[in-house]
Amino acid sequence: IVDGQKLWDDILETAKFGGTAKGGIKRLTLTQEDRQVRDWFTKACEAVGCSVSYDSLGNQFARRPGTDDALAPITMGSHLDTQPTGGKFDGIIGVLGGLAVLRTLHETKRETRHPIELINWTNEEGSRFAPAMLCSGVFAGVFTEQEALDKKDREGIRFEDALNGIGYRGVAPCGDHPVAAYFELHIEQGPILEAEHQTIGIVTGVQGMRWYEVTLRGQDAHAGSTPMRMRADALVTAARMIDAVQKIALENGPDAVGTVGLIENTPNSRNVVPGEVFFTVDFRDPDDGVVQKMEETFYRIANDLAEKAGLTLELARVWDSPAVHFDVECIASVRRSAETLGYPARAIVSGAGHDAAYMARITPTSMIFVPCAGGLSHNEAESAESDDVTAGANVLLRAVLETDMR
Amino acid sequence: IVDGQKLWDDILETAKFGGTAKGGIKRLTLTQEDRQVRDWFTKACEAVGCSVSYDSLGNQFARRPGTDDALAPITMGSHLDTQPTGGKFDGIIGVLGGLAVLRTLHETKRETRHPIELINWTNEEGSRFAPAMLCSGVFAGVFTEQEALDKKDREGIRFEDALNGIGYRGVAPCGDHPVAAYFELHIEQGPILEAEHQTIGIVTGVQGMRWYEVTLRGQDAHAGSTPMRMRADALVTAARMIDAVQKIALENGPDAVGTVGLIENTPNSRNVVPGEVFFTVDFRDPDDGVVQKMEETFYRIANDLAEKAGLTLELARVWDSPAVHFDVECIASVRRSAETLGYPARAIVSGAGHDAAYMARITPTSMIFVPCAGGLSHNEAESAESDDVTAGANVLLRAVLETDMR
Ligand SMILES: NC(=O)NCCC(=O)O
Ligand SMILES: NC(=O)NCCC(=O)O
Repeated sequence: IVDGQKLWDDILETAKFGGTAKGGIKRLTLTQEDRQVRDWFTKACEAVGCSVSYDSLGNQFARRPGTDDALAPITMGSHLDTQPTGGKFDGIIGVLGGLAVLRTLHETKRETRHPIELINWTNEEGSRFAPAMLCSGVFAGVFTEQEALDKKDREGIRFEDALNGIGYRGVAPCGDHPVAAYFELHIEQGPILEAEHQTIGIVTGVQGMRWYEVTLRGQDAHAGSTPMRMRADALVTAARMIDAVQKIALENGPDAVGTVGLIENTPNSRNVVPGEVFFTVDFRDPDDGVVQKMEETFYRIANDLAEKAGLTLELARVWDSPAVHFDVECIASVRRSAETLGYPARAIVSGAGHDAAYMARITPTSMIFVPCAGGLSHNEAESAESDDVTAGANVLLRAVLETDMR
Repeated sequence: IVDGQKLWDDILETAKFGGTAKGGIKRLTLTQEDRQVRDWFTKACEAVGCSVSYDSLGNQFARRPGTDDALAPITMGSHLDTQPTGGKFDGIIGVLGGLAVLRTLHETKRETRHPIELINWTNEEGSRFAPAMLCSGVFAGVFTEQEALDKKDREGIRFEDALNGIGYRGVAPCGDHPVAAYFELHIEQGPILEAEHQTIGIVTGVQGMRWYEVTLRGQDAHAGSTPMRMRADALVTAARMIDAVQKIALENGPDAVGTVGLIENTPNSRNVVPGEVFFTVDFRDPDDGVVQKMEETFYRIANDLAEKAGLTLELARVWDSPAVHFDVECIASVRRSAETLGYPARAIVSGAGHDAAYMARITPTSMIFVPCAGGLSHNEAESAESDDVTAGANVLLRAVLETDMR
């Protein structure tokens, strides 16, 4: 059993790194705030008897030796980076919950056969550098290290330079060691567990998701003296596409979602007809076939709209993360642990992407969800109950130990 | 007759202050680039025998004495600030054309009864600080000096601080002296003169224009795990409003225009449902009644859309510049000057706002337009012919002298 009070204290203590007036966190990956929480992570893990290192992409590993160090580690992890208007729980409870597990093992002097490793993944959110789950993706062989290093944020800053800037570019190549299993604790970020009064979500998989980048080019022109029929207004057509993204999601059944989260308008001046607009699209569904259908519909509508308006269109899929099904044994470990501990639990598919989605490609994996208030996430008001977070960490502890004994 | 070659050289020389790779100018008001061109203006005007001063809002005045200094000055002017992706002509030829007039008077030792004054107005574009024509507006008593000083740009920087920052906050209160007349040379910024092979537009007035600011508030939420029906997506509704602005303009006849030029999305992250959007609207028509009708339609549609989507809506008209009719005598002076000089000319109403629109409230005013390529303006590719600009400056010279002799 973990120390729930200490876990909650850790959550509140680290929330000050990038803490916002509204009680949320703004801790974009590879910023100074991220460096601060990384430094804290190192100290906290060392205090519970772990050796801490980081790899070439800044992924941090806190390792507790096993009795048989020839065995690959059983791993836990998540991320400490946040959205620009992020909350105190998304990603964070997975890392600090893992820390609580290590603390319990340390304080009870519990020996495990496998080494136990806690991982803080770099750039899970995908807000600063697209796509999400970038560095667990490299660890799992989905992207190359160089691809990650070359990513640029919207200001044009390279991932590698940002990583060097906070002093977290390690020498060990990302993905240099095998792992025996991976467990990730996370808030649900959706409304189901709370609505059904369940404490634990036994996560069976992650829905399929794809990201797109769209650039529309027309012509900057004077908003007062340019007749309507002479305009090539990139923003008006972008607006129609944004509307279409919502309609496409609504037409594709109860689970499909479609979002335009980011838009940049140029030159963005009140009396200039916009000449260029960049925006992103996010389509998801548990069924990859539905995602494919949404993509096809959007491509058709986008091409039509751009052509009718006389604009040039650049449209590219920049990320494709197909639906993931977690490991049967790991799922069973989570279910048994919740049962044994007496927590109400149900199976659930994740609507959000997680590092576990990539780790599942190289090692037996599952996740543990706990409820969050109103299903709200990626919001400064994101909130979870201490008891639920503690319950999740207890399930994590038990699932890790059960896996170690298998 | 002015020295057209020198005028053209001045245009190219000043274009380096904020010059862009694409041949345009980015010289937002009260930036260091603006300071550089102001310093240049002072020297150039002193070199042709003028004394140069600036008032409490940074408006610059180059004054050439008359034989009867008890008379109020006949004034010319325009602006040297530009849009973020502005061209080399908008505003600039009005100031440098006025300089060419002063140079001719100086070199020919021509005496005038009235003092002649050339004005470089601060913040005409309205791109950094809304609204446009802010400081000619204060000069004309439409706004107070304090209102101007308190304006903030989108970064929250106050006008007064920016003005102090470039050292152009003078002591003379804005609007401290009467003027006898005002003439402004400008590119048309529209397609008519070029299409009809006219060299000179005799500007009879300026159309009515209104600006609005819209803020929509919903809720930041996770783009993957938030079901469509649980969203309060501010951007989707903003998109529908942007679409409506275009439709409203198209439905209101051949002259009406409607533009959303600026949009800011929050938190602007690929996987976050946008919780807040700010955007601007610009409606114009030569008939104020049509502008009024567009406003009413937009207010109704905006309220409907926000309500249906469960969003809160803030909607405010932040600028109202009614249609302007210039002075009959000044218009006649411009017409006669063009005729006498043998330039093909036609009457025209300005689609763009100009400092002349506010000066017309306190003094007899008219404007002189010259063609620009394709009617394109507020674009780095904005272009005009040297011969046309020279012709415009010659008409300006003659209209000023004729007014002086009246
Ligand atoms: N868990 C989480 O919010 N990850 C961000 C990646 C996503 O967009 O789903
Ligand atoms: N002439 C000009 O472009 N002025 C800017 C004000 C406006 O018309 O929007």
